[in-house]
Amino acid sequence: MALNPVYPVTWHGDHVRLIDQTRLPGEFTYVEIRRSEDMALAIQTMIVRGAPAIGVAAAYGMYLGALEISAVDREAFLEALDRVGDRLAATRPTAVNLFWAIQKMRSAAQTSGAAVDQIRQLLLETAQRIAADDLRTCQAIGDHGLSALPPTPERLRLLTHCNAGALATAGYGTALGVVRSAWSAGRLERVFADETRPRLQGAKLTTWECVQEEIPVTLITDNMAAHCMQRGLIDAVVVGADRIAANGDAANKIGTYSVAICAQAHHIPFFVAAPLSTIDFSLTDGSQIPIEERDPAEIFQVGSVRLCPEGVEFYNPAFDVTPADLIAGIITEHGVVAPADLEAKLRPLA
Amino acid sequence: MALNPVYPVTWHGDHVRLIDQTRLPGEFTYVEIRRSEDMALAIQTMIVRGAPAIGVAAAYGMYLGALEISAVDREAFLEALDRVGDRLAATRPTAVNLFWAIQKMRSAAQTSGAAVDQIRQLLLETAQRIAADDLRTCQAIGDHGLSALPPTPERLRLLTHCNAGALATAGYGTALGVVRSAWSAGRLERVFADETRPRLQGAKLTTWECVQEEIPVTLITDNMAAHCMQRGLIDAVVVGADRIAANGDAANKIGTYSVAICAQAHHIPFFVAAPLSTIDFSLTDGSQIPIEERDPAEIFQVGSVRLCPEGVEFYNPAFDVTPADLIAGIITEHGVVAPADLEAKLRPLA
Repeated sequence: MALNPVYPVTWHGDHVRLIDQTRLPGEFTYVEIRRSEDMALAIQTMIVRGAPAIGVAAAYGMYLGALEISAVDREAFLEALDRVGDRLAATRPTAVNLFWAIQKMRSAAQTSGAAVDQIRQLLLETAQRIAADDLRTCQAIGDHGLSALPPTPERLRLLTHCNAGALATAGYGTALGVVRSAWSAGRLERVFADETRPRLQGAKLTTWECVQEEIPVTLITDNMAAHCMQRGLIDAVVVGADRIAANGDAANKIGTYSVAICAQAHHIPFFVAAPLSTIDFSLTDGSQIPIEERDPAEIFQVGSVRLCPEGVEFYNPAFDVTPADLIAGIITEHGVVAPADLEAKLRPLA
Repeated sequence: MALNPVYPVTWHGDHVRLIDQTRLPGEFTYVEIRRSEDMALAIQTMIVRGAPAIGVAAAYGMYLGALEISAVDREAFLEALDRVGDRLAATRPTAVNLFWAIQKMRSAAQTSGAAVDQIRQLLLETAQRIAADDLRTCQAIGDHGLSALPPTPERLRLLTHCNAGALATAGYGTALGVVRSAWSAGRLERVFADETRPRLQGAKLTTWECVQEEIPVTLITDNMAAHCMQRGLIDAVVVGADRIAANGDAANKIGTYSVAICAQAHHIPFFVAAPLSTIDFSLTDGSQIPIEERDPAEIFQVGSVRLCPEGVEFYNPAFDVTPADLIAGIITEHGVVAPADLEAKLRPLA
């Protein structure tokens, strides 16, 4: 059976096509985005999610916004474009790739001395380059990650949390990029996927991606990971990241920190796979990373089922921060780097 | 407002009344049990659940079975009663209180020299005593637990996992017994309840119990516990147990082990609250505790919502084992005991 690779954000002449990730795995449908504001809403409602994919989506959102600006004067155009960027940046606070991509687009426009129409064309090319670069970056991350995985056993059992897959990037994935490269190389026995409450990206997205490519996947609830480690079922952990501070502290989907503590308790290597654009060298450590809190309905309701009675309070942080000392290596497109070496090895490339 | 205490297993002249815990919190309904086989099914399907409550239910199940035995010959009656016990014992493998209660009932019948009718009466009295003892035991656990909690802050934030509450016992609860005693003593700020995937006993039962008594409760997903600890929101952890080995290793609802590892990483005391009947001195350590695996539909389906695509595999262990070295103290009706002291201090009382 021919397997179709997954591309969640693609450009089609005059619109962006997003896989609607809120409807997977039940329905595989696309949403066509033709306006900047619709892209902002798609990011907010998690039709598109995953740090690198949000970056690509926001870049196209900037271009769509540029098409909507009526100003022909260069300065007025750049000012309006700034407001488009502000709107897109206000969608989600944690993933830094969002701000990185918006800034890339702004810089491209600002540094060009050309007329408005040419700037628009330049913005499309920049967005397309961000998307193409992200896909290549993920493939490099996958291959570097493969080389960092434990040498034994021959066929590894890898645990992952949330979805840092093709759906979370321009394609191929970061953590699932490592999984894909291991699978291609015959070094993967099986993926254990944490379901990842409350939004269940592991149950809904990671398993779906694996099934598309016939990669063996076992779904567990998040609280089973430690038990699986105790039973010797896990050889390594690979997760993505939404923002990494200069000292290597990594923000990722809520629950990642718990997995990292448990991995260390079982002497299982814990890797973070992310592009250079996820590293925020302006932050000295993870305590400075803003953590998004989302609607408590994500916790107390699944489908139409309300899980708990009235009168209960909730806390719904969407991300947590894993301290650098729990991370065996950060897998980037430039190689696998110890958290303590980020500054020295990767800041010059950023 | 007058608050009604919760009693999940009560005797009513000729039948047992169970709170149907599969319908909480949406519906508060009772199931009337008049036959031993119906009690076995109620235990299997988790209409009644929680190690001590299962013990009480099984004791009444033995009496209902005794009523159904037509033999008037004492030996034939005892043999038939053994088969009733075997059926009830085959319902769930992990909680040792089940086997303990069945054995209590068997012994009462076997050591009585009386005629069958008198043995039946003795069995009813024994079951009622097991229920009454469990309630008193839980109140003692609550009070001993309170004395073992950290002296500061004045008002504690306690994290619990699953439901070791009134619903899991004859009443008052083990872990939630400690919570109730702390609340009565003005030493409780708030309970953090893990939702406890896959069956969501924390979301459905623990929050419901707290709301009944107006105890402030914050519901989180299981994977948020470590983040809450990192943020300084948790002062101590109290959980129940389904079986404790002689060395102090404790089996409890899946996810407990993960909480224990995270608590240790944050220097937060982790307590196990359970009656003496939960300790299985015949097992030297936790590796000998049988772990029930349940239907994978518990993972992939919530209500009528299927969470993941076809083609995925599952692993659904219902319990895990927390090693003794992660446990600050085991809170019993005879006081709080370090795991290493179980043999010396509690075996003589068993």
